[in-house]
Amino acid sequence: MKKDCLIEEDLKYIWHPCTQMKDHETLPLVPIKKGEGVYLYDFEDNAYIDGVSSWWVNLFGHCHPYINQKVKEQIDTLEHVIFAGFTHEPIIQLSQRLCALAPKGLQKCFYADNGSSAIEVALKMSFQYHKNRGEKRPFFVSLSNSYHGETIGALAIGDVKLYKEIFEDILLQTLQAPVPKDQSEEAAREAALGLEKVFQAYEGKVAAFIIEPLVQCAGGMHMYHPLYITLARKLCDSYDIHLIADEIAVGFGRTGKMFACEYAGVSPDFMTLSKGLTGGYLPLSVVLTTQKVYEAFYGDYVEFKAFLHSHSYTGNPLACSAANATLDIFEQESILEKNEEKIAFIAEQLERFKALPNVQTIRQTGMIAAVELKEYPIDFRVNLKIFEYAMKKGVILRPLGNIVYFMPPYVITCKEIERMMDVAYEAIVSVNDL
Amino acid sequence: MKKDCLIEEDLKYIWHPCTQMKDHETLPLVPIKKGEGVYLYDFEDNAYIDGVSSWWVNLFGHCHPYINQKVKEQIDTLEHVIFAGFTHEPIIQLSQRLCALAPKGLQKCFYADNGSSAIEVALKMSFQYHKNRGEKRPFFVSLSNSYHGETIGALAIGDVKLYKEIFEDILLQTLQAPVPKDQSEEAAREAALGLEKVFQAYEGKVAAFIIEPLVQCAGGMHMYHPLYITLARKLCDSYDIHLIADEIAVGFGRTGKMFACEYAGVSPDFMTLSKGLTGGYLPLSVVLTTQKVYEAFYGDYVEFKAFLHSHSYTGNPLACSAANATLDIFEQESILEKNEEKIAFIAEQLERFKALPNVQTIRQTGMIAAVELKEYPIDFRVNLKIFEYAMKKGVILRPLGNIVYFMPPYVITCKEIERMMDVAYEAIVSVNDL
Repeated sequence: MKKDCLIEEDLKYIWHPCTQMKDHETLPLVPIKKGEGVYLYDFEDNAYIDGVSSWWVNLFGHCHPYINQKVKEQIDTLEHVIFAGFTHEPIIQLSQRLCALAPKGLQKCFYADNGSSAIEVALKMSFQYHKNRGEKRPFFVSLSNSYHGETIGALAIGDVKLYKEIFEDILLQTLQAPVPKDQSEEAAREAALGLEKVFQAYEGKVAAFIIEPLVQCAGGMHMYHPLYITLARKLCDSYDIHLIADEIAVGFGRTGKMFACEYAGVSPDFMTLSKGLTGGYLPLSVVLTTQKVYEAFYGDYVEFKAFLHSHSYTGNPLACSAANATLDIFEQESILEKNEEKIAFIAEQLERFKALPNVQTIRQTGMIAAVELKEYPIDFRVNLKIFEYAMKKGVILRPLGNIVYFMPPYVITCKEIERMMDVAYEAIVSVNDL
Repeated sequence: MKKDCLIEEDLKYIWHPCTQMKDHETLPLVPIKKGEGVYLYDFEDNAYIDGVSSWWVNLFGHCHPYINQKVKEQIDTLEHVIFAGFTHEPIIQLSQRLCALAPKGLQKCFYADNGSSAIEVALKMSFQYHKNRGEKRPFFVSLSNSYHGETIGALAIGDVKLYKEIFEDILLQTLQAPVPKDQSEEAAREAALGLEKVFQAYEGKVAAFIIEPLVQCAGGMHMYHPLYITLARKLCDSYDIHLIADEIAVGFGRTGKMFACEYAGVSPDFMTLSKGLTGGYLPLSVVLTTQKVYEAFYGDYVEFKAFLHSHSYTGNPLACSAANATLDIFEQESILEKNEEKIAFIAEQLERFKALPNVQTIRQTGMIAAVELKEYPIDFRVNLKIFEYAMKKGVILRPLGNIVYFMPPYVITCKEIERMMDVAYEAIVSVNDL
């Protein structure tokens, strides 16, 4: 099919995620023909730097030869098998490796297919853990401005009004504690006081507290100090509340370390992973938890303590083979060490944005950087203006409202980082001139 | 790794879905080395007929050469791309084909990764549809004994106590109408009266009514007459309530026709698909809906009518390529026609089970057949006894409680059906002798 025909047929049959479809009356959909490394190519062979890692999933570029080879080998051996009563080598290897990499104490892996489902698993596990021990704790606490997915349970625990407000009547009531207002230690201490107030007010009723450690990604790349995680861990211990670290977006090196919790030297009771888990190839998610949690569900069948949750494709071998290949690359190519240079380069490049009249602030945590513009009226659609400008220059940027952010695949070179940030700079200037 | 080592390492790091892990103290996990056609092979090269299609997902056998080839071609072109603002050929083709195959009027595809997520999408879309039109309808109705997945929204709309009861305190309250008690027309009419009572009692407050058409699969393969779907459609029309057809398990030929709704000649407002969608290869799900529903969300961005739901891997090209290959096989090999002979053969084979003293009843809808045993005490674990017996004979059967069922891949031959059912017969006899 030709490009125009593809667009027409797409709009006839497809309803895109998180999209006001009417926008596509003026903003053309972009059919992508192929991917290679940090670039996506359209049907006119225009190349685009994937500055958003295709929704924060891609780590080592598109169509990576090594990952491709490993998935192909797997598909010729075992594409899938039921994961209750049965098992397979790729998932055993993956689980060994994840437990070895994860913060200490996380040593059991429960799999699902997407981030939202992993969050739902963690919430249900935490709730049932307390119930299996004779306690009813129906409340969950999250941070203000948090996002943890969009299935009904995951949406309920989040706090981004744009996604949540319309569904209030069908959502579980949850509690929010204040997120630290900036990256300072003082803000972390202040927010921890707010958290303790919530724990006190609902003492004995809260099952778990969930955070996206260091960076609230869908919450406009809002960043906070690791001290907050340390303080939160202590409070959770005092009140016998589980700490869930949602590392779906921030895990796998995005913050500089393998997992963001490492900055605080803290082990959560549950850690949820997805996105980068398969290097950006296939949907797969996992909840890591402790032996203590596992044991609260372990017993004779007739006690009905088991965690009866499942998805048909749980533990899919193809997705696991992509995940193992991803971890191979991390090891073989010392990715985290190599990223340090890129992180420093991004920091350097970010400085110049400060001087722009329509920039409020800049921030960075590892391979994630953000430029916060001044507020624009909603109908100005500043994010679309930046997106369109950057696309014309061969860079994919998808600002979250007035937050222009960068989350590129790790295969991006310093030269490409510079180009991506040049384009963002020009785009922000162009918006200021409007 | 060797088999024993694999089992040991698995149990050290993995928490399996829908499993009381203590069961594996006596019931060995089975590591699977490879798959080929209808067979799965363990590490001692024992072959097992996959009588449950690996949780009802596999259609054309394991490691099918044609599907493998198509996924490999796709992985060399484009493994994944963000699906907001961008699109790709495999998903456009898939959407065209699904809309052409689906009941009339279903002409928009919204994608997700697993069945539960598709259910959540349908529930949220239905709720927001009414809200966008100025009506607040916070209730959903489902059938007694229904199962629609296990994320918190999907679990709330189901009615299988075993999965749901422990989580009651964190679930949305939903309403259940009686499922027809058997496959007769009379039972369908009676149940429709019950449905109308619920619709009357909650008039103006119900957003949607959800059914698994013809077969409640996780509900013990309970079956009912297509007349019920016709009657339910009429009632939904009268009360302006959406009809959601959950064809995740029953779709793609399981009931004999492509979609179970076809038996009633009825178009639902939403149809959810997953499992067989990719032929058993990869997690992918889709919600098909009408132009009318789509239009209720269509408007200027600032009206905030858009459906702001997304998953990172939505529309994954690899999963779409497996799905397109699956539809190719349906077409090229006239699968539905060929299955007719197998369906008749299963019916013939099923007859002999009636005579067994511990069999209560038998039933069949297309390629799904079930033998309901008499009730056994829970601690007798009749399902595990049947499972273990059949495994020793090279057949995978996983009874749901006292319901022994058959849902094999369509590549199974009549000879293999006979063997599978011979083994089930012997297993049921062996249990009776205990």
